[in-house]
Amino acid sequence: MQRSLLSAGAAFVAVGLLGRAALADEGLWTFDNFPAAAVKAKYGVSIDQAWLDHVQHAAIRLSTGCSASVVSPDGLVLTNHHCISDCAQSLSTPQQDYIKSGFIAASRREERLCPGMQAEILTSIADVTDRIEGAVAGKTGPDFVKSRDATIAAIEQEGCAGKAAILRCQVVTLYQGGQYKLYTYRKYSDVRLVFAPEFATAFFGGDPDNFSFPHYALECSFVRLYENGQPVKTPEHLRWNAAAPTDGEPVFVAGDPFSTQRQFTADQLSFLRNIQLLQTLLRYSELRGRLISFSEESPEQARVATHELFSIENGYKARYDALLALNEPGFIEGKHEADLALKAKVDADPKLKAVVGDPWSEIAQAENVHGGIYAAYELLESGPAPGSDLYGWARTLVRSSAERQKPNSERLPDFTDNRLPLLEKGVTDAKPVDPKLEQLELEFWLTKVREYLTADAPETKRMLGKDSPEEVSKRLASSRLIDPAYRKQLWEGGQAAIDACEDPLIRYVVATDPVARALRKRYEERVGAPLERAQARLAKAHFAVYGTSVAPDATLTPRLTYGKITGWTAHDQTVPSFTYFKGLYERATGQPPFQLTQRWIDAQPKLNPNTVFNISSNTDLFPGNSGSPLINAKGEVIGAIFDGNMYMLAGAFAYDGRLRAVSVSTASITEALEKVYDDTELVKELRAAQ
Amino acid sequence: MQRSLLSAGAAFVAVGLLGRAALADEGLWTFDNFPAAAVKAKYGVSIDQAWLDHVQHAAIRLSTGCSASVVSPDGLVLTNHHCISDCAQSLSTPQQDYIKSGFIAASRREERLCPGMQAEILTSIADVTDRIEGAVAGKTGPDFVKSRDATIAAIEQEGCAGKAAILRCQVVTLYQGGQYKLYTYRKYSDVRLVFAPEFATAFFGGDPDNFSFPHYALECSFVRLYENGQPVKTPEHLRWNAAAPTDGEPVFVAGDPFSTQRQFTADQLSFLRNIQLLQTLLRYSELRGRLISFSEESPEQARVATHELFSIENGYKARYDALLALNEPGFIEGKHEADLALKAKVDADPKLKAVVGDPWSEIAQAENVHGGIYAAYELLESGPAPGSDLYGWARTLVRSSAERQKPNSERLPDFTDNRLPLLEKGVTDAKPVDPKLEQLELEFWLTKVREYLTADAPETKRMLGKDSPEEVSKRLASSRLIDPAYRKQLWEGGQAAIDACEDPLIRYVVATDPVARALRKRYEERVGAPLERAQARLAKAHFAVYGTSVAPDATLTPRLTYGKITGWTAHDQTVPSFTYFKGLYERATGQPPFQLTQRWIDAQPKLNPNTVFNISSNTDLFPGNSGSPLINAKGEVIGAIFDGNMYMLAGAFAYDGRLRAVSVSTASITEALEKVYDDTELVKELRAAQ
Repeated sequence: MQRSLLSAGAAFVAVGLLGRAALADEGLWTFDNFPAAAVKAKYGVSIDQAWLDHVQHAAIRLSTGCSASVVSPDGLVLTNHHCISDCAQSLSTPQQDYIKSGFIAASRREERLCPGMQAEILTSIADVTDRIEGAVAGKTGPDFVKSRDATIAAIEQEGCAGKAAILRCQVVTLYQGGQYKLYTYRKYSDVRLVFAPEFATAFFGGDPDNFSFPHYALECSFVRLYENGQPVKTPEHLRWNAAAPTDGEPVFVAGDPFSTQRQFTADQLSFLRNIQLLQTLLRYSELRGRLISFSEESPEQARVATHELFSIENGYKARYDALLALNEPGFIEGKHEADLALKAKVDADPKLKAVVGDPWSEIAQAENVHGGIYAAYELLESGPAPGSDLYGWARTLVRSSAERQKPNSERLPDFTDNRLPLLEKGVTDAKPVDPKLEQLELEFWLTKVREYLTADAPETKRMLGKDSPEEVSKRLASSRLIDPAYRKQLWEGGQAAIDACEDPLIRYVVATDPVARALRKRYEERVGAPLERAQARLAKAHFAVYGTSVAPDATLTPRLTYGKITGWTAHDQTVPSFTYFKGLYERATGQPPFQLTQRWIDAQPKLNPNTVFNISSNTDLFPGNSGSPLINAKGEVIGAIFDGNMYMLAGAFAYDGRLRAVSVSTASITEALEKVYDDTELVKELRAAQ
Repeated sequence: MQRSLLSAGAAFVAVGLLGRAALADEGLWTFDNFPAAAVKAKYGVSIDQAWLDHVQHAAIRLSTGCSASVVSPDGLVLTNHHCISDCAQSLSTPQQDYIKSGFIAASRREERLCPGMQAEILTSIADVTDRIEGAVAGKTGPDFVKSRDATIAAIEQEGCAGKAAILRCQVVTLYQGGQYKLYTYRKYSDVRLVFAPEFATAFFGGDPDNFSFPHYALECSFVRLYENGQPVKTPEHLRWNAAAPTDGEPVFVAGDPFSTQRQFTADQLSFLRNIQLLQTLLRYSELRGRLISFSEESPEQARVATHELFSIENGYKARYDALLALNEPGFIEGKHEADLALKAKVDADPKLKAVVGDPWSEIAQAENVHGGIYAAYELLESGPAPGSDLYGWARTLVRSSAERQKPNSERLPDFTDNRLPLLEKGVTDAKPVDPKLEQLELEFWLTKVREYLTADAPETKRMLGKDSPEEVSKRLASSRLIDPAYRKQLWEGGQAAIDACEDPLIRYVVATDPVARALRKRYEERVGAPLERAQARLAKAHFAVYGTSVAPDATLTPRLTYGKITGWTAHDQTVPSFTYFKGLYERATGQPPFQLTQRWIDAQPKLNPNTVFNISSNTDLFPGNSGSPLINAKGEVIGAIFDGNMYMLAGAFAYDGRLRAVSVSTASITEALEKVYDDTELVKELRAAQ
């Protein structure tokens, strides 16, 4: 797809010069700073505290990187299919493939635990900026890192003291270091799958239709929250509205978008463009190729690789469109001008200048260092062996055994007491893995270590010795960690169990962990800390000049956005706000990814062809919002976000007025449950929640 | 590998401001414009016309995209292993794998034809600039394309009239349109494989060591020119020098580097960076992944994919390093400043301005259009179905049958009478193809058509209809074109045979060719012609300001470069000029790609460990130079170029003083033939040619 020149670049120049509040409907707002007055002025809708509280308490963050919402008083939760496809695949066997055929629990007893999944509902937000800034004041490098991490660990520990079994506490960094807040969540660690359509139905249009509109996908699923073996009572659910939505009506989205970089400087964006996004895309691209060929060798290999291939293709396309935005002529240059404009304002105000200094130069210097260690840090510490469950479990077991021996304040941040329960759940929940696919992932990773770091680098020699990636990965993929009981035994056995363990993967991680830890230390002290220190002062400059009328960059924490149902105009073509069931049948070719399942072919005569299927709205969003409820002015759920157009991805760096969110309507979900899936129990529960 | 900042960017600024002749040893010189005086001044070596003629007549261009040299009076030719690996693989079977075990012809009768390979020796150069400029004067768009193509066809036809069986004529565009020259070559279309080492020996170090030094690879092979069933007599061969070279001695490289872009404007480089290189790298990366997984499924799948995987990895790494050069801070900006400096000089000279105009703006505009059609043009017309022999044959058969019915002057340039013989050879020579690998290539290609052009584009609908890439590729890979006799029959049968042919691939190409031709027309008229017109005037500006003391960009035609044997300093580490056999044994790990064959393990006691193995020199070069002779001052061959360091790849856009060429020494080839391969016949022939 060709995008017109200058779009986002021009948009950003405007942002820099005119101040950010001028732009319509932009903003991934926190629940404690929602611009209700602006919504009232623009859409005539009054959003009061009760409305906000209600939505906040029905909005769910899934630990698997998705959003969701409670839609019945019995803990029923609406989310996307791709948010549970890892779960559906984990529950499948060669004989019973829930990805292919869908999953319909005939009764509550048949609802099944999703391994590793935790649902979290935000209950309170407290400002802890002063405490953290006080702790790190005047510190740099290792001192800064140590003080910051110890203070955060203490705040989280105190926040959840005595209630760690049901609460999760998280210190969130907002405005790239301008604010720190303590978020407290009610957590539910027993989440069970209730309903999922077939992959072919949920992902109709496949990769070709991903990140675009029009779209024809029943991209939904239902899970249920359990506690003590019983469905959780959830009186504060969103009401289920099965009626057709109205074009132009105001809508809201509550969910947890991943990190955005709208407040990054031009130097940070150049780093992303020239190094991080480029390297990631190239790696994803090769892995995609490996997975496709792997899948084509047999139906069973295709089955076990389905979720991973989807994830990689989805992540690839998202990053590709983001890179296109950065490559647009004038985009980074426009951002550079915005940097200079803000810097000029700071320089002109001696008092502000004394506080802010020159964070731009400090950031440029830190990114320069970053470029030199990025590949090693990414491959060995930050994201090692992506796609390998075995490796992830091994690292968690090895590190947690070491870290748990230290006082809470001295541990690596991921291993503080407050964070251990979710780690334990991730390691010990039963989840099948395919050794051949594991070997593919491990081998791919190790070839990239050798490629990016070179064969002669000390790190590569430590990872491979005189062996090849092919040999090492074969050995590691034979790990006994495939057995959840064995993992549980190692988790509970702690350091002594790890020391005594002869598993090849455990021994490998023990032997290579010092390399990874050294890289982490180097990164934290020479890149992470200088960046955070500089960004905190850059945020102060932003606040001083533009105020907090700008939403903070997204941080995978709960946000609320607003806008309206609307289509868009692209390449002189107007795309309407809705698609309908009839369009699905027109788009079907009989070949994947445009293939209907037999169930849908059979149901066609019964279905109302004019049912609104997918919805376009201009509500600001970003990946991570997948599964978020689309909410009307009355606070009812009318859809589930599952996609956005390419301008959503450009939105990583700057809001673009052409951004659109794509939802699957509650109307179509209800109609499909009734007419295609005959799931009367589920429909009854939803209708009762209207 | 991390490169220091500003290197090439800074170098280019210097070029732009100071004029290009200032830089040492830069230049891929044509044989008719070699700077002998500069060589004399710098190295004290006198290069006279006889020396130049001798080297020119012993230097070979291989039609497979490599260089080579004649090294005995009986038509023996030295080149690289990777220049014949496609041939060695074609000659192999599941039972006899010459890639794995090497190929040693015990006698001349065992030397075997390399399918599709033609060797060409440049015999004369004539300037035809005036004739072409006269023909296109004042013309634009379709008229420009038609006149240019017709004139070139006529010049080539006249140049080889009556001698088409032994000559090839080619109009070459130099200085991006500043000059047109008619190159006449003596051609040899019966080229037979004589000797090839094992792939593991030729490509020791594999992808990890590719484009780097130190290096330990016997990256050589020998072929022989035949005519009428007999070896060709080649009295003008290079003398074989088996002695160790001397550090610091002056050396020369004769060969055929692919296109460089040193004379591109900043806008052209931005297009390369943001679109062409990025898309190509991402595609190569996925194809690499597909090929790796395909290869890992069975030894036989690995065997049939060896050459293709090597090609893709090699092409990937070359482009990646080129992209790094363009991504270097300040590089494109520096080029932009150089553009502005030249433009200022033009603008200051009314007479020059009247001739030159503003090619910079015209180029920017053409590249803007280019960005909009690049993906479609590349995928459907310029490089469709890369890696699929079947598709290549089908297109040649379909197009040639149509084009041969037209007068020579009205044909597509690739199908003029002068070019038909090599096409015919390529189509009709016997070459095995693997249907499963073919399907992989075709399926990959069609998924990329759908991905880059979108599922809804008319071109995609024409290519796929309602089918999926998986279905279409399966059908096409079943083509009867796998049979060379059938291909010959279709070639000879012309249009009538194509019309009657029911082969699925032939029918597919017939049905989709109009889409490709329309894209070609659009590209030629809206991008190609405007670029060529603008670049011709840009070249005039270059000539007026800097003279022809600058070598033209490389164009896959014979060039001669000079320099000396020298190591280099990288990251404060000095890399010596030579590696030795002993280093090979030290680097061997026992695992691919650092694995010695049994033959080399056995031979170690006999080999002189101090034999110079690979050589580093600062001679300017570029990919396409693979197989080029490394020549000493006396005109003797002392090595074969097979690689360069990463600055060679940056050399696509600007010469960098840290550029190094990497050769395998004749000393090591001789020693290995004697002690490892016991190939006494070949050694005898080489020793006799000393």
